[in-house]
Amino acid sequence: MSAIPVDLVRKTAELSAEATGPFPGSRKIYVTGSRPDLRVPMREVIQSPTQTQSGLEENPPIPVYDTSGPYTDPEVEIDLSRGLPRVRSAWISERGDTEELAEYSSAFARVRAADPALAWLRFPNPPRPRRAKPGRVVTQMHYARQGIITPEMEYVAIRENLRLETLRADPRYQQLLRQHPGQSFGVALPELITPEFVRQEVARGRAIIPANINHPELEPMIIGRNFRVKINTNIGNSALSSSIAEEVEKMVWSARWGGDTLMDLSTGPHIHETREWILRNAPMPIGTVPLYQALEKVEGRPEELTWELVRDTLIEQAEQGVDYFTLHAGVLLRYIPLTAKRLTGIVSRGGSIMAKWCLAHHEENLLYTHFAEICEILRSYDVAISLGDGLRPGSIADANDAAQFAELATLGELTRIAWDQDVQVMIEGPGHVPLQLIQTNMDKELAECFEAPFYTLGPIVTDIAPGYDHLSSAIGATLIGWQGTAMLCYVTPKEHLGLPAKEDVREGIIAYRIAAHAADLAKGLPGAQLRDNALSKARFEFRWEDQFNLGLDPERARAYHDQTLPHATHKLAHFCSMCGPQFCSMRITQEVRDLAAQQPDAQVAEGMRAKAREFRSSGAKLYQRI
Amino acid sequence: MSAIPVDLVRKTAELSAEATGPFPGSRKIYVTGSRPDLRVPMREVIQSPTQTQSGLEENPPIPVYDTSGPYTDPEVEIDLSRGLPRVRSAWISERGDTEELAEYSSAFARVRAADPALAWLRFPNPPRPRRAKPGRVVTQMHYARQGIITPEMEYVAIRENLRLETLRADPRYQQLLRQHPGQSFGVALPELITPEFVRQEVARGRAIIPANINHPELEPMIIGRNFRVKINTNIGNSALSSSIAEEVEKMVWSARWGGDTLMDLSTGPHIHETREWILRNAPMPIGTVPLYQALEKVEGRPEELTWELVRDTLIEQAEQGVDYFTLHAGVLLRYIPLTAKRLTGIVSRGGSIMAKWCLAHHEENLLYTHFAEICEILRSYDVAISLGDGLRPGSIADANDAAQFAELATLGELTRIAWDQDVQVMIEGPGHVPLQLIQTNMDKELAECFEAPFYTLGPIVTDIAPGYDHLSSAIGATLIGWQGTAMLCYVTPKEHLGLPAKEDVREGIIAYRIAAHAADLAKGLPGAQLRDNALSKARFEFRWEDQFNLGLDPERARAYHDQTLPHATHKLAHFCSMCGPQFCSMRITQEVRDLAAQQPDAQVAEGMRAKAREFRSSGAKLYQRI
Repeated sequence: MSAIPVDLVRKTAELSAEATGPFPGSRKIYVTGSRPDLRVPMREVIQSPTQTQSGLEENPPIPVYDTSGPYTDPEVEIDLSRGLPRVRSAWISERGDTEELAEYSSAFARVRAADPALAWLRFPNPPRPRRAKPGRVVTQMHYARQGIITPEMEYVAIRENLRLETLRADPRYQQLLRQHPGQSFGVALPELITPEFVRQEVARGRAIIPANINHPELEPMIIGRNFRVKINTNIGNSALSSSIAEEVEKMVWSARWGGDTLMDLSTGPHIHETREWILRNAPMPIGTVPLYQALEKVEGRPEELTWELVRDTLIEQAEQGVDYFTLHAGVLLRYIPLTAKRLTGIVSRGGSIMAKWCLAHHEENLLYTHFAEICEILRSYDVAISLGDGLRPGSIADANDAAQFAELATLGELTRIAWDQDVQVMIEGPGHVPLQLIQTNMDKELAECFEAPFYTLGPIVTDIAPGYDHLSSAIGATLIGWQGTAMLCYVTPKEHLGLPAKEDVREGIIAYRIAAHAADLAKGLPGAQLRDNALSKARFEFRWEDQFNLGLDPERARAYHDQTLPHATHKLAHFCSMCGPQFCSMRITQEVRDLAAQQPDAQVAEGMRAKAREFRSSGAKLYQRI
Repeated sequence: MSAIPVDLVRKTAELSAEATGPFPGSRKIYVTGSRPDLRVPMREVIQSPTQTQSGLEENPPIPVYDTSGPYTDPEVEIDLSRGLPRVRSAWISERGDTEELAEYSSAFARVRAADPALAWLRFPNPPRPRRAKPGRVVTQMHYARQGIITPEMEYVAIRENLRLETLRADPRYQQLLRQHPGQSFGVALPELITPEFVRQEVARGRAIIPANINHPELEPMIIGRNFRVKINTNIGNSALSSSIAEEVEKMVWSARWGGDTLMDLSTGPHIHETREWILRNAPMPIGTVPLYQALEKVEGRPEELTWELVRDTLIEQAEQGVDYFTLHAGVLLRYIPLTAKRLTGIVSRGGSIMAKWCLAHHEENLLYTHFAEICEILRSYDVAISLGDGLRPGSIADANDAAQFAELATLGELTRIAWDQDVQVMIEGPGHVPLQLIQTNMDKELAECFEAPFYTLGPIVTDIAPGYDHLSSAIGATLIGWQGTAMLCYVTPKEHLGLPAKEDVREGIIAYRIAAHAADLAKGLPGAQLRDNALSKARFEFRWEDQFNLGLDPERARAYHDQTLPHATHKLAHFCSMCGPQFCSMRITQEVRDLAAQQPDAQVAEGMRAKAREFRSSGAKLYQRI
């Protein structure tokens, strides 16, 4: 460990310029809820006015969902070694059902905290761990079932709405709010998300708010099929590369481009310390696979995993503030032979760890046999469970097979056990599934897991595109998101090939933001089409800067435009590069519209006859020469 | 014109190394049909053997559909100034229904051919134009309706099958040919494509074989929903950039990565000459929008277009060998006012040219009023018609509106007129359509255009992703391809922003190859899953090179792998970068499989108990340290 250079740690205190600062043409806004410390961040894209014959016409700002955290707020001073503001601290302590502990409950955490050799690497002044008072349950599901609307619930209600109620009352938005009806596959999307609706959905288990009491820095968000489709991103150093500095930067980078949650899949000697740095600076829920760390503790030998070790790891991570755990508790001993004739066997790392443990001991999966005990631990911190699909298919050939669906049924059984203890649950899904088999996955999940939020990895719809699996999986993700999947785990272009670099992470996130948004549009989520409409209007009116800024990736849109038309004046040009300055198809419509504006619809044909000569003589108006 | 440097022309005689040569790990094969000059090219990906405990196990070569033309055949000497071998010449002349003309029928073509100032730019020794003898019809549809199976029909049958009948009889392919049943939306895919089936589909108008008698260099292909989904690519210099050299290179580049057809959308002073270079060297059908060139001839003033001018342009291009024309004949005068209240009006360039013409003259679209006459011309060369959707939506807000569907109904009316004259037809479709509105597009097209092949541009399913519209449109393309669209017009990442460079073309093509293949899988196209299965098996067995070579883009897959694991030995490594050398999830399955192989399914659980101790003591076998 001492081989790691000191400047690596120093780097943890610095973020790159490209990962921080506001988006171009945007400003951060906060919508305050029922209490002054409940301030929900959003981003507003400012638009330039439209030039009409009668002068300038205002284009109103467009609010967009903002996952980027305080890093894009120029008013907030970022100091990674202090961590983000603890926005939830008061909410948690006011509830009076938790207590600060004098020391970590995990033996491993205590050892790490006391090791002077790690001092240089450690996050300075970590908060004391908090836990439910004896006999108390502190999960959002518990509160919801008691009829309590928590600040977290109100927060996500405001966040989901994106000021829609205000916009609806504002005449400037009337045209832009027009939207096609959705096809919702049985989902009932309310016209407006109320805190009470959030409470009901959480109580019912149809949505979760991952929000560990030890992660007060969190900006709460909700995962459920009656809400916006969310996306998860992964970071992890693996055994081959990365450092703490890189991991924190990647987390901020992921938040910037639109990751709603983030899984830290790191391995290696310093995962405990890395995780602390990430959590203290993470505005989004953080998930982990605790088994990965447990495996580190037995030097990579799955057969040496014990319940005591796993338990200590769960507590260690819960007291750091991890918001959800992926647990491969459904990989049962009797399911393992079902994978023998697969083309690609077991491809989930967690799944294969547990399969190996089961085989080595010829015992039932210890996560399964201790599942009720696990729930007892997690409900003291409000760690949500993401039930891992350890037997997911690793090729489309293996999709929807006996092993996969046997495990899914067990995940439903485990969902009941968790819900009995008020523990929030989501269900992980595949993976690799051809299009025509996707719907069955969704239908089975809803039926057998009682509508607990589905959280899928893609699925990839063909295996022949290594290097492009962000795309091949975004296709499947869009379809299953439309059908009701609540969160989509992103895939980068490096999937199956290598570790994603920053640009790969960005590519993967944008691909999945497209998938999630296309699904929202298709479901008919109220207000979802606003941004599309605003961007299309900007495009049609040649407001290039607005078009860039309203897009998911303004930097790239601008850069691509610059490659063909590099001059600043081109940003104001009334032509696009496809047609060149001589002629542009979009211009013609303005003529049609001008004509139609002068008379009611029924008279347009008449008017056109009268206008034909005039139009012809003034034909030059259709051209824009510069 | 004389300002263009001579070395620009010289460059037309050279292709870059990256655009030519065989694919890695692949060889070109030819399957000979019923006559020796009917040789259908395919590519075979060679695989390395699998190492098993009992030795090496062969993995058979995987045939893949090959659009790349002779450029990937090391046996063929490429000389752009001579053009490709004229593989169809004998077939065409043997039919005895055509004659070589002494000179071009088009006045414009004659002027160009006689202009000494263009000599330096002209394709050397262009073939003499050919036309149907008086009173004869020379379309594939005509022959099909006469009960004639042409060499072109036999060619596409062999090409579509990819040797499936041979593979089915070969024991090495049995496991790899396993495939999920499709969901075909009413399509009836035969187990094997016969020449007679091709004939029936062409006669019925449900498929087309674009194959101008003046394009004998063509490797015939078929477009129809009972065949593989195809993709079209576009090239075009636009007014702002490009040269002949670049255009020819782009065509070859497009063929290499998987473009089934190519539309030359060039504008500018030398489109006639550029097109000749492209056609003489194009193995794929070439499409154009003749209106673009007609517009050049009237210096960009749509209102000055006349039927005589358009007619001469159609003949000019037909005698060069263009295989299909996009004609915006459905943009009727009375539909134009329907676009007035759109968010983004008319965005099709061809559509807006015709709209402007209609408005300027207050007359009906001349392509509509002369449609029967156009068909008379085209059937003398076998130019297929792609009925353009000039009123397609330019934003999801405008999807499925009155203007769009009014035009679609007219395209159906025009289809009947063309079919009456044995002219092959396909129907162009949108554009920008949210997911939930896509199916209506397909259903209406099938009903109102009598199952003529649908050819859609995407559709893009959300407007908020400029810079990523290859992806946002590939999602819609996959869905509509699954539902029965026969050909997908690609979109590049530069869509809406700028002109695509080579890398953008490649990105766009691969995105669309993914879409087309995912659609084929979902429809249940026989044999479609073979390549997926082979690649997944290679992946599972850590045959990295095979995995790369079986992918759509071996170069990128290899490059991405190299970024994380640069050493050659890593290509043989039994681990992937996600888990590192210590542990890899895929290894576990080999253990499960070895176990299962030793005993029947029912005894597996028993056997596992017995094996548990042995397994544990030999646990180190699961690790691969290097």
